[in-house]
Amino acid sequence: MQCLTTRMDGTPPTLTERADPTPAADSDAVVVRTLRVGIDGTDHAVVAGAHGDPPAGRDQLILGHEAVGVTETPHPQLPAGSVVTPLVRRPRDAAGPDRLDMASPAAVHECGIDGADGFACERFVADVRYLVAIPAELAPAGILIEPLSVAHKAIDLAMAARQTVPWEPAHAVVIGNGSLGLLCTLALQLDPRVGRVSCMGRRDRPDPTIAVIERLGAHYLDTRRTPVPALADAPQRPALIIEATGHAPHAFETITALAHGGVGALLGVPGDDMRSLDAGRLHRDMVVGNKALIGSVNSGRPAYLQAVETLAAAPSWFADAMIDRVLPHSEAPAAFSDDDTTIKTAIEFAAYEER
Amino acid sequence: MQCLTTRMDGTPPTLTERADPTPAADSDAVVVRTLRVGIDGTDHAVVAGAHGDPPAGRDQLILGHEAVGVTETPHPQLPAGSVVTPLVRRPRDAAGPDRLDMASPAAVHECGIDGADGFACERFVADVRYLVAIPAELAPAGILIEPLSVAHKAIDLAMAARQTVPWEPAHAVVIGNGSLGLLCTLALQLDPRVGRVSCMGRRDRPDPTIAVIERLGAHYLDTRRTPVPALADAPQRPALIIEATGHAPHAFETITALAHGGVGALLGVPGDDMRSLDAGRLHRDMVVGNKALIGSVNSGRPAYLQAVETLAAAPSWFADAMIDRVLPHSEAPAAFSDDDTTIKTAIEFAAYEER
Repeated sequence: MQCLTTRMDGTPPTLTERADPTPAADSDAVVVRTLRVGIDGTDHAVVAGAHGDPPAGRDQLILGHEAVGVTETPHPQLPAGSVVTPLVRRPRDAAGPDRLDMASPAAVHECGIDGADGFACERFVADVRYLVAIPAELAPAGILIEPLSVAHKAIDLAMAARQTVPWEPAHAVVIGNGSLGLLCTLALQLDPRVGRVSCMGRRDRPDPTIAVIERLGAHYLDTRRTPVPALADAPQRPALIIEATGHAPHAFETITALAHGGVGALLGVPGDDMRSLDAGRLHRDMVVGNKALIGSVNSGRPAYLQAVETLAAAPSWFADAMIDRVLPHSEAPAAFSDDDTTIKTAIEFAAYEER
Repeated sequence: MQCLTTRMDGTPPTLTERADPTPAADSDAVVVRTLRVGIDGTDHAVVAGAHGDPPAGRDQLILGHEAVGVTETPHPQLPAGSVVTPLVRRPRDAAGPDRLDMASPAAVHECGIDGADGFACERFVADVRYLVAIPAELAPAGILIEPLSVAHKAIDLAMAARQTVPWEPAHAVVIGNGSLGLLCTLALQLDPRVGRVSCMGRRDRPDPTIAVIERLGAHYLDTRRTPVPALADAPQRPALIIEATGHAPHAFETITALAHGGVGALLGVPGDDMRSLDAGRLHRDMVVGNKALIGSVNSGRPAYLQAVETLAAAPSWFADAMIDRVLPHSEAPAAFSDDDTTIKTAIEFAAYEER
């Protein structure tokens, strides 16, 4: 079968022939026929060699951590023909931690990223405990479930942090209009606990991301006109901010921007970035303002299930507007030459055909 | 009656004669005869003019926000003779926010600190909704309830932030062995959810604060030998850190020190403090490590009730070890000339006599 692999050294990924995977006997593993794999910023970082590692003893990694497929082998908990999306993390040891998404990176592998092959190949094998069954009609959009679950986990952690006090995020702001920022915007816009939703970017109209934001009923804020700290003076100071850029100054500007009692959720993964900051003012602002900053990475099954619900409730145009470039797997390496106007590139390994 | 007042300009506070307060007719206000008032770092900042404001139109403020007293006027909800401790915040407008402790500072006054007189006088008047009745046997220690409630609120917010994931703070660390740090240590040490408790300071033995820490069964860590970031390499990396120093670098070192999935609660209120920080590393560490930082100030009735329980469950030696300097109110101004070895100075306005 054909797989999209990377040497993680900045050279372009290539299609490589690999033997079809076979599940270990007496295991809970099943074979999944891949339908689509999505590409995001982490994949670019992996290809560039900036993040992750190949499996132990190998010099190449199969890419792909946003995937949807159909199971080919039956399992008592999962009939053959089920449309599934895989979780990304696997325990490094048999006795792994309970919630892999909250575990130390040292305790887990991440498929397609760090220490384990991903799903960008015609078939992959996974233990059923790492597969989430989704409705068949979500198959074409299924690659959105992993990143949407990352948004849901962050929102959950933020909401939990304010469970014990009266708190209504009358205004929630997403910093960043990349695909993750747009999925955060969808999740917040459909969340009955949240009032007004804004998404910040720095693009001029017409722009496909601004179109998605506004078709969702959310508000586009141009950071060139309204920098993040200026939100502190906005008519409705945000009670919830989700940072989805990986631009480190935004993490700290979030403290300034938040309303009293507000929560900032951080999702971006920046590189080192030395800055001169007023540590005293930031510290004092967090304390006197009862503000919280919550870092969040990866996601577990509960967040996947929320993502399935959100995606099922999304407007019918949403998935096609988000997945605006679909490449056959024979052209998979070209997925990494997308320009900035593409929201989400998908590699199609097979079309879904109902049995 | 005599009151301890400050001009908030760095001059020493003085005893000032004021008319006895009288509750407004048809109000829920009662007269409280003050027993003791505690002094903390905020009082010093208020006297220095670094924090707070006198009541509108006045140039002096009555000090004191940690207080215990006995009610002198009856109220349907609170019999005369009740031992009480007052909440610190009052709404600026009649229609104040629900949870004053989570409100914007612009929406509240703080008695003895900002915009409203405190309790360092022979009698004060308070609406019963701002009084918490405590067991009579806690009267001598009652001044500890306000700062202990500040510790409890912070612990509550930290625990809430991890309610939705498996999380056991097997090791909790308090940064700072001032009176607030010691009260945090007590609260954590008595909390069945928390394992090992350490408290960090930079004192040499013999020292009364180290004695309190160790008599509680907690562990003293000398920051001169174990700086905060070195906790990252401790055999048991802390899952919960409470910062109680107001030293801004500690807020950011907390991120480095925390175990994956950990929570840092910030309680100190530093002044401006420009620093060169690796914003990218801090941001990335919070995200990849699923770490949270939670600022917390002030406290509400629920935290006061927890503090009452904790103080009642504290070892019998604890209150006397903490309140290690008691001045008659005629010597109240001397309370501000304490040296670094005093844990907590109390001003005694009246001894408690059971009716």
